[in-house]
Amino acid sequence: MFASAADFSAALSALPSPDSGARSAAAARQAQLTKPPGSLGRLEDLAILIAGWQGRERPEIGRARVAVFAGNHGVAARGVSAFPASVTAQMVENFARGGAAINALSAAAGAELVVVPIDLDRPTADFTMAAAMTEAECLAALNAGAAVAEAGIDLLAVGEMGIANSTAAAALCAASFGGEAVDWAGPGTGVDAAGLARKAAVIDAALAFHRGALTSPFETLRRLGGRELAAIAGAVVAARLARVPVAMDGFIATAAIAPIAASQPAIVDHIVAGHVSAEPGHRRLLDRIGLSPLLSLDMRLGEGSGAAVAINIIRSALAAHGGMATFAEAGIGSG
Amino acid sequence: MFASAADFSAALSALPSPDSGARSAAAARQAQLTKPPGSLGRLEDLAILIAGWQGRERPEIGRARVAVFAGNHGVAARGVSAFPASVTAQMVENFARGGAAINALSAAAGAELVVVPIDLDRPTADFTMAAAMTEAECLAALNAGAAVAEAGIDLLAVGEMGIANSTAAAALCAASFGGEAVDWAGPGTGVDAAGLARKAAVIDAALAFHRGALTSPFETLRRLGGRELAAIAGAVVAARLARVPVAMDGFIATAAIAPIAASQPAIVDHIVAGHVSAEPGHRRLLDRIGLSPLLSLDMRLGEGSGAAVAINIIRSALAAHGGMATFAEAGIGSG
Repeated sequence: MFASAADFSAALSALPSPDSGARSAAAARQAQLTKPPGSLGRLEDLAILIAGWQGRERPEIGRARVAVFAGNHGVAARGVSAFPASVTAQMVENFARGGAAINALSAAAGAELVVVPIDLDRPTADFTMAAAMTEAECLAALNAGAAVAEAGIDLLAVGEMGIANSTAAAALCAASFGGEAVDWAGPGTGVDAAGLARKAAVIDAALAFHRGALTSPFETLRRLGGRELAAIAGAVVAARLARVPVAMDGFIATAAIAPIAASQPAIVDHIVAGHVSAEPGHRRLLDRIGLSPLLSLDMRLGEGSGAAVAINIIRSALAAHGGMATFAEAGIGSG
Repeated sequence: MFASAADFSAALSALPSPDSGARSAAAARQAQLTKPPGSLGRLEDLAILIAGWQGRERPEIGRARVAVFAGNHGVAARGVSAFPASVTAQMVENFARGGAAINALSAAAGAELVVVPIDLDRPTADFTMAAAMTEAECLAALNAGAAVAEAGIDLLAVGEMGIANSTAAAALCAASFGGEAVDWAGPGTGVDAAGLARKAAVIDAALAFHRGALTSPFETLRRLGGRELAAIAGAVVAARLARVPVAMDGFIATAAIAPIAASQPAIVDHIVAGHVSAEPGHRRLLDRIGLSPLLSLDMRLGEGSGAAVAINIIRSALAAHGGMATFAEAGIGSG
């Protein structure tokens, strides 16, 4: 998909727009359905948004895919997580056996689940002392992500698994939108106060080390990100090029597109924020990039879990949009 | 179900509690599942709540029912709604033909839809000058509601349709929890500023007329409510007696239990607030009765629409609860 860093940058400069005709037709249809105008709230907005990307007045989700990317992080050795790095591979095994939350939640949402572990036996470099990835590694991760956004998918939900990746996510946010580590770092999967202090120190050290070198979204992802985070960025951009709408998961998944959003704010136009995580930085990040979350259920698991639950809301929105009668069909005065 | 007003009062004084053993077992199971403790947020709480009412560690929703009650209101003649009273029957016809939002949303949630129009050709009395219903009429409506909460239903969602019923709902809230009309009245399905002023005046007149006579939840429902609102109250109480958990819809549906909640706050224990409506009084009412909404999607349609969408969230919660592996099963250290 992306032949080079320059190729990725070129894609970001030429993001497609939605089909304005399909959007207009969907909006006109909403105004004719048997309900007071606007009374389905965000369900109406969702139907119009998906219509624009699918390019049809009555969009459908025949095939929804949840893609979960996994990677390991050199910085995990610095005690920034409540879990050891070995848990990443154990959870990937759990995904494969069908025992994780995302297995149950994908099935409940009628979505297929694709799990993409990327070089779990080769953690990224400790980004306080080096770039997390080489250019080739970052490009490979972007393309591993892009590969899940194939044609024929009607909706793509993205999530992640990677011990220590909330540290990388906070670093990506601070690098993209300013602020210090404490503005973006939270407890993640449950680190204590001492762990949180270590995490903030690690992030500030990384920001100082890479200052001046974060010259593009690709470079920020390469230096401060991780394989699963670059993969999410690749999947989101590839989905955009294929006009596939994306349901975004929580803080870490959203942070993966922060470097892109900082330079190309329109990247969020095909994204539905599935939920707002209990991780404190997520609300701030969503506000910053202009996304309003569909759900707020105090979830903080990752794995694509919040995005998977949100698929149900999107399905409901499209069911009402496509299935309701118009006032004329029902023979009701529109008031 | 309820033989008399006294019988209804007696039921309210003897509301059953959840099965504490099943609740404890479900909570213990949540702590063993392959995720950081608490990381599924409200999905965990939902699973434990439903476990308590269904009386089993791993609850299931085989059969979900959405019940929509419809009634007409004498007060509609006073210009408190943006729609004429004839729309109530037209929308009931639309429900029967499958063309309304609730048809599509119930189907998307895998729920059966039961529509219960109650004496649409006999509007309640104008409650600014009389009790809305006689005792026999109110009792009949309570029992029409109770009839939908039969055994074998695993989850009951309740909603309403009735032109002018946001006026009755605001009156029920003010009578139950104090405040004036302006504290509880909103635009409903889209009344303008002049209409809102008429609505507030009507509510204040009704509160003044019935002052001193609102001596029980039954009397408040009878004097200020409506048939569909009494039916919701009957359905919610009957569901409680049958230990069927309830997904509550928006402002009007929630207002139907306000008189009960004011005297028996535990009525909400088997209720999940499906969403918070865009109608301004709903948030205030939910706060007052101690319910936190699952969804906040700016919906304001009624018909059970928000509750129906919320069924998907409850299904997701139970899917994760019942389907996930424990740490022991997955061979993962719990950190």
